Amino acid sequence: MRSSGIDRRDIAVIAAEVATAVDLAEGPAGVLDVLRAVARHEPIAVRDVSRHAELPVPIVAAICNELRRRNVVDSQRPVRLTESSRSAFAVGGWQDGGRCPTCDGRGIVVPAELEAIGDELDRLAEAMPEAKVELDQTHCTVDTKLRRVMLMAELGLLTKRMVFLGDDDLTSLSVAHALSLTGETPSITVVDVDTDVLAFIAEQARTLGVHIDTVEHDLVKPLPEALLGAFELVFTDPPYTIAGAELFLSRAASALAPQIGHHILFAFGARRPSETVAVQRIIGELGLAVRSLQPNFNDYVGAGILGGTSHMYHLRTTDETAPLIVGEHEGPLYSADGRAAAVRRYQCVQCKHIEPVGPGERYPRIADLKQATCPQCGSEKFRPLSLNERPKR
Amino acid sequence: MRSSGIDRRDIAVIAAEVATAVDLAEGPAGVLDVLRAVARHEPIAVRDVSRHAELPVPIVAAICNELRRRNVVDSQRPVRLTESSRSAFAVGGWQDGGRCPTCDGRGIVVPAELEAIGDELDRLAEAMPEAKVELDQTHCTVDTKLRRVMLMAELGLLTKRMVFLGDDDLTSLSVAHALSLTGETPSITVVDVDTDVLAFIAEQARTLGVHIDTVEHDLVKPLPEALLGAFELVFTDPPYTIAGAELFLSRAASALAPQIGHHILFAFGARRPSETVAVQRIIGELGLAVRSLQPNFNDYVGAGILGGTSHMYHLRTTDETAPLIVGEHEGPLYSADGRAAAVRRYQCVQCKHIEPVGPGERYPRIADLKQATCPQCGSEKFRPLSLNERPKR
Repeated sequence: MRSSGIDRRDIAVIAAEVATAVDLAEGPAGVLDVLRAVARHEPIAVRDVSRHAELPVPIVAAICNELRRRNVVDSQRPVRLTESSRSAFAVGGWQDGGRCPTCDGRGIVVPAELEAIGDELDRLAEAMPEAKVELDQTHCTVDTKLRRVMLMAELGLLTKRMVFLGDDDLTSLSVAHALSLTGETPSITVVDVDTDVLAFIAEQARTLGVHIDTVEHDLVKPLPEALLGAFELVFTDPPYTIAGAELFLSRAASALAPQIGHHILFAFGARRPSETVAVQRIIGELGLAVRSLQPNFNDYVGAGILGGTSHMYHLRTTDETAPLIVGEHEGPLYSADGRAAAVRRYQCVQCKHIEPVGPGERYPRIADLKQATCPQCGSEKFRPLSLNERPKR
Repeated sequence: MRSSGIDRRDIAVIAAEVATAVDLAEGPAGVLDVLRAVARHEPIAVRDVSRHAELPVPIVAAICNELRRRNVVDSQRPVRLTESSRSAFAVGGWQDGGRCPTCDGRGIVVPAELEAIGDELDRLAEAMPEAKVELDQTHCTVDTKLRRVMLMAELGLLTKRMVFLGDDDLTSLSVAHALSLTGETPSITVVDVDTDVLAFIAEQARTLGVHIDTVEHDLVKPLPEALLGAFELVFTDPPYTIAGAELFLSRAASALAPQIGHHILFAFGARRPSETVAVQRIIGELGLAVRSLQPNFNDYVGAGILGGTSHMYHLRTTDETAPLIVGEHEGPLYSADGRAAAVRRYQCVQCKHIEPVGPGERYPRIADLKQATCPQCGSEKFRPLSLNERPKR
C-alpha cells in the first residue's frame, strides 16, 4: 500500500511551487528555511518563524498560507506541520542540540552583577520619548542593551572614546549605567537629529552623575569639524536601507581617528539577499574589515516586519578605510521613503549606460536587468554604483 | 608623591612606540590588542596571545619583547604584566564575564550523543596520511570537527547534497560518522588533489558502510563538468592566501546549483587587516552574502603562525552569485609560494596604470602607493583588481 505521507522529494517540489506563487526573492531555499523553522519549533508564531528564517513577517505569512493549501502546514495557529508532512523533517535528536543553550547561540552572556541595572534600564525605556517611525526609530529590548554592553566589554571597548551615531535606543545610557557600577568614567558622545532623545539622554546622564556629550546634528550633513577623527569606537544602528548603511558608515569612518584597528559596532537587519550583498560590498568599499557578524544579536520591542531582530557587525578600520560620502547626502534614506530601501544604480560595464534597479523600477532585480541585457548595447555585465558615486565615463 | 605606576595614557604612548618599532601593520591598536589579551589571561603563552589578538606568533613575540624593554611586560615566561603596569588594565569584575562559558563564545555546542564519535575521529586522525605543508594542509582538532558537524546541523545542512573542496582534515568522514548514529545517508563528494587523502577517505567510508564520492582534481583547473551546479552546500578550508580564497570560492560558486540561498561554509584565517578586506571584497564581488562570521571557530593541531585558529564564514548564494575565475588559475596559490600571500595588483582609476602592491614589491602596502601617487599620472585613486581580472583599458 502506498504511503500517504509527504517525503523530502515532495517537499522540494512544493518549495519550488510556493516560491513561485509568492514570488520569493530567496527562492525555494527561503521556503525550506521557513519549513525548517516550523519543524524545529512547532507550534510557532509567524513572527518567530520570521526571525529564524530571516524573512519579513508578511512574506512568512504568505508562504505559510500556500503551504496550508498544499497540506504541508496545518490550518491551526500558531504554525505547525501536518501529520503527513512531519516525517519529512524528522532528524536525529542530537541534531537539534547545536545552538548553545546558555547564550542562545550569540556567544555573549550577561553576568548577574550587570543584570542588576536591568530594572533601571526598564525604567528609562518607560520614561523615554516614543519611537518616531518616520526616523526608522525602533527601541531594542533591555536584554539587548545589556548584551551590547557585554559585547563591548568582551572586546575591551568600554574605555574607548566612543560616539553613537543615532541613539534612540539609549545604548549610551546603558554603557554609562554599567560603568557606574565600578565607578569608571565613560567617554561618550551622542549625535542625533532628534532633540527629544538628546535632551532625555543628557538629563538622565546628569541624574546618574556622569557627563554625556550630546550633539544635535542631521547625519545627511557632514559631521561637525570637532567630531572628525575624534573617536576610537562608533556604535550605530542606522536606517535599514542601503543608503542608510552607506551614509552612516561613511560618517563612522569620518568620526574615527585615522588609524588602523579602530572599531565600529554596526547593527543592521537583513532584507533581501541582494541587499545584504550590497551593504557588505559597501563595507568593503569603505576599507573596513568585518571581524565578526552575529545574526539576530539585537531584539527590538514591537513586531516590525523583520521579526524584530537585527544582526551585529563588528568592523575594524584598516589602512584603506575612507568614507564613501564626504559631502551632503541627497536622496531617500529611511525605509518610509520607500525607494531608499532597495533601489540601486547599475552601470553597464561595456557602454557605461546607467539603469536603476529596485522595486518600482523597470527592472526590480539585477537578475531582471541581466536577463533583459543592457537597453543600450545588449551587454549582460553590470556593476553596482555606490549610492553617491559619480559614474565612470 | 608621584606614583611610579604606568597609567593608561602612558600605555597609549608606549603602544605607538612599539607599533613603530616592530613596523606593525595593525598599528598601536594591535599592540593594545596584545596587552589586553595578556591582561585578561596572564600568565599566558605567546601562542594563546596570538589567538586572542589575531596576530601571527612571531609578531606577538616581537611585540612582547619591546614591551619587556619598556617595563610593561615582565621578563618571566609565560607572558605577564609587570606590577607597575597591571593597574592600567584593571577593569570591573563583571567586564570579564561576557564570553559565554558554555560555548567559549562560539555559539555552538556538541551534545554528549555526538561526543561519542570523538574517539573514532581521534583514531582516524592518528591513522591518516601526514599533513603536506606544501599544500597548506593543517589538520583541525577533533573538537573542531564535531563543532563543524553541529554547525551544519544547526543550519539544517546535513541532508544537503554537499561537496568538500579539499578535505585534508576529514570533515566529510566526521559528517558521515555523525549521520551513521541515526542511520541517515549522507550525500557527500570530496574533491582533492591529494590522492593519499582521497584513498583514506574512500576506504574509511567503506568501513563505515557509507559511500563518499571521491574526485581527484586540482582546483587550479575548472571543475569537471559533472560537478558544475550539482550541490547545495560547499565546505572549504582553502590555502590562506587572497589567491586561494578567490580561486576556491569561485569553484564553490561553480559547484553550487544556480539558485538563491545555497550555502558555503568557508574556513579562513586572518592575516593582515588589508588582506581581510581584500578577501571580503572578493566575497562581495562573487555576489555571496555573508550570513555569519564567527572568529576563531576552527582550532588546528600544531602551532602554525596564526596561533592555530581560523574563522568560519557562512555564505549564501544570491541572484548575483557567479564565479570570478572560470578558466584555469595561473600564478601562486599556497602560502609557501610567498608572493601569493599578499601581492595584489591595483589599477589607477585615472590613467589605468597597474601596480603590484605587497611584500617585496616597490609599494608594500596600498597606503604606500596612495601616498607616493600613481607613478604614471600622479593620481591617488586606485582600485584592486581581482587576481585573474583582465585590467580595464
